Amino acid sequence: MKKTIEPWTCLSRETVFEHSPWLTIESHHLRLPGGKEISDWKWVKTPDFINVVAVDTEGLFHCFRQQKYAVKGITLAITGGYIDAGEDPIVAAQRELTEETRLVSAEWTALGAYPIDGNRGSGTGHLFLAELCQYVGGEVNDDLEDQEKILLTRSEVKEALCAGEFGVMPWVAALALALVRLS
Amino acid sequence: MKKTIEPWTCLSRETVFEHSPWLTIESHHLRLPGGKEISDWKWVKTPDFINVVAVDTEGLFHCFRQQKYAVKGITLAITGGYIDAGEDPIVAAQRELTEETRLVSAEWTALGAYPIDGNRGSGTGHLFLAELCQYVGGEVNDDLEDQEKILLTRSEVKEALCAGEFGVMPWVAALALALVRLS
Repeated sequence: MKKTIEPWTCLSRETVFEHSPWLTIESHHLRLPGGKEISDWKWVKTPDFINVVAVDTEGLFHCFRQQKYAVKGITLAITGGYIDAGEDPIVAAQRELTEETRLVSAEWTALGAYPIDGNRGSGTGHLFLAELCQYVGGEVNDDLEDQEKILLTRSEVKEALCAGEFGVMPWVAALALALVRLS
Repeated sequence: MKKTIEPWTCLSRETVFEHSPWLTIESHHLRLPGGKEISDWKWVKTPDFINVVAVDTEGLFHCFRQQKYAVKGITLAITGGYIDAGEDPIVAAQRELTEETRLVSAEWTALGAYPIDGNRGSGTGHLFLAELCQYVGGEVNDDLEDQEKILLTRSEVKEALCAGEFGVMPWVAALALALVRLS
């Protein structure tokens, strides 16, 4: 028989730090199962984002070599970006894929949506697998980022993942999930 | 030939919000390659943490059904917790595994350490695979969390992962990486 597990309830919340639209900190007053209360649970809000594992019609994974502020040195990366206000996650994924790589995909699979911090939120990442990718015309828009395209086979992706060469948690989650599904 | 990719340089930093030891917000003054500067890049500090994929001598994955504040409803979960000040990540992983499950492992594999937010940090998760787990005596310490142990086969883990039943990004990364390595 399954145990009854009750959620934490948020009784009230207030904003205690704001740097809109990038970062907002809230203080939540919580009630836990059994009645215990926590009066000042910090909650972190940042924009939700997408990451895309892009595989072309030859089975090659379209990745990048780039810098990322939270990672020391150069890292391998995948397509990603913030979801615009009101934008559907799949639309953001399709937009970012084409902006960053000039690829379009004929076969999209949702790999799930996950908060990056189970305690404080910190934004939800929507992960996608985009297969049968092909080039369209136009120019790449790479925002602030200095990045270089790199094409990897499935076994090269597996090797790089296991060596820790993809340096950010949601990229690792997306790629490993994609490999699990494709295996 | 590989393109030269330069890092962003932090010229100065100041703390703009503090709720020690759980959450600190800094403002960083950055210089980008080419000389462009960003005067107020927000950086989020939370304690680093570990997650452990625990597999016993029968090949069963030791997971939980639990609530987690950032996830709606009940989620499947794995062992996890914050690293104490000065503690080695593998020691934290071994400590948390035994505290939460009363298991010890005879075969530890590091699955990598990854910031959860590539732009703002938000803490680094150290992921581990613990194989050949066996019970030791003693009582479970489950902190604030109301959780129920659940044992899953490898194919049940794969199915639950693909169905989005593990609700937090680092848990998904750890489990999917473990499946990739074990396959």
